[in-house]
Amino acid sequence: MTDQSRQWTAGLVVIGDEILSGRTQDRNVAQVSEWLNQQGIRLAEVRIVADEAGRIGEAVNALRAAYDYCFTTGGIGPTHDDITVDAIAAALGVAVVVHPAARKILEDYYRGRPGGLTEARLRMARVPQGAELIPNPTSGAPGVKIGNVYILAGVPHIAASMLEALAGTLEGGRPMVSVIVGARAPESDVADLLRETEAAHPGVAIGSYPFFKDGTYGANFVIRSEDPGLAARCGEALQGELRGAGFEPVAGGI
Amino acid sequence: MTDQSRQWTAGLVVIGDEILSGRTQDRNVAQVSEWLNQQGIRLAEVRIVADEAGRIGEAVNALRAAYDYCFTTGGIGPTHDDITVDAIAAALGVAVVVHPAARKILEDYYRGRPGGLTEARLRMARVPQGAELIPNPTSGAPGVKIGNVYILAGVPHIAASMLEALAGTLEGGRPMVSVIVGARAPESDVADLLRETEAAHPGVAIGSYPFFKDGTYGANFVIRSEDPGLAARCGEALQGELRGAGFEPVAGGI
Repeated sequence: MTDQSRQWTAGLVVIGDEILSGRTQDRNVAQVSEWLNQQGIRLAEVRIVADEAGRIGEAVNALRAAYDYCFTTGGIGPTHDDITVDAIAAALGVAVVVHPAARKILEDYYRGRPGGLTEARLRMARVPQGAELIPNPTSGAPGVKIGNVYILAGVPHIAASMLEALAGTLEGGRPMVSVIVGARAPESDVADLLRETEAAHPGVAIGSYPFFKDGTYGANFVIRSEDPGLAARCGEALQGELRGAGFEPVAGGI
Repeated sequence: MTDQSRQWTAGLVVIGDEILSGRTQDRNVAQVSEWLNQQGIRLAEVRIVADEAGRIGEAVNALRAAYDYCFTTGGIGPTHDDITVDAIAAALGVAVVVHPAARKILEDYYRGRPGGLTEARLRMARVPQGAELIPNPTSGAPGVKIGNVYILAGVPHIAASMLEALAGTLEGGRPMVSVIVGARAPESDVADLLRETEAAHPGVAIGSYPFFKDGTYGANFVIRSEDPGLAARCGEALQGELRGAGFEPVAGGI
């Protein structure tokens, strides 16, 4: 049985100079967050750090202590800048070892492929001592789980397939649901009614996300709760309040 | 004169439940990073935190101490979930005050607009005591600078216009340049030559970014340095090494 009474949380460490340099647009924050939500776990904090062992270790140690789970993406390939496993092993104070099952997976994966299992590729069988493997249905080299730390690939579609393999294996609570109401209202005109609607519905959080579209200002209001009925009632109430203030609400957002 | 001998660094705190929930794809990390690079400042770490005063304050205090500059995006609008100014003032141990010039800007901005300067809109004139304003050429409500902390809007095009207004005002070093070489080579086949090429060119960092495209595996190799000549020489050398290993290099990347 899942404990419904408490909220489960996770932190995410995105590892990679290419994200920090602005060269690559991160895709993992959104996809890890959506996946966690399906497991009933809330993504509470993200840190994006450079390919530097000290920074990686610091971030992992902070987030694995602060939240129920700590995920990482990036830095587990075969090249010299792939230092995630070493950095996390150092942060946990354990040795790096070749995992026999990971070695076997790589041997099988590269058997038919040019070059075979090179020294560089064998790097991807290295794990912090005591770790388990996370299956990689996409490209062979597995992810790694040690304690509450889940080490995933950085390439988004590979990370996605590792998350699929993990689905249902983590303890979580109720998924957060959201109800969206939009209006072509400057958010500063509805700030009071938003605050009051939120206050009248304990257990919801209302976020306000302004936009400028088709020549007019507007905002989408996102009502989030673990209680689908409560979120729906709050959405109805907000639509009524918006109408009362002279703005046409759009259920589902604009 | 700009000090060319040391590297300038910045941290970025992205504030917003909408990013953490996966609902909104962040655009500010890449744009702040690119802008910083033009100023000769390296984005060294990003933290994405929820709309919670404690988390915001903790992240800002950590990054303003660890790096030369700390930027934040998000949470400076008129609604109840816009708590960035209050959270940062608390983290710095100063009061929140209405900035007279910000009040004037908002009075002028809202004079011709429906509703005028409401109480909610006036929230956007509140700053931590001792702060200066960052011009907002887009939508009136200014950003805020206090010490080495730069508080920007979360809406990407508004944040962009605040950054434009700040361009050239921060002390920095030489911009980092990058040279990109691509090859349709599995990165595990070229791991050794990458490491050796990097080692032979002190002052460069080579990142390897694998892809799967048009049915083949490949990777782009990004050579970064503050020295454009060095980066170019390293790029030439890497192309030669790739050719020697039987892979056709593509200058500029694939």
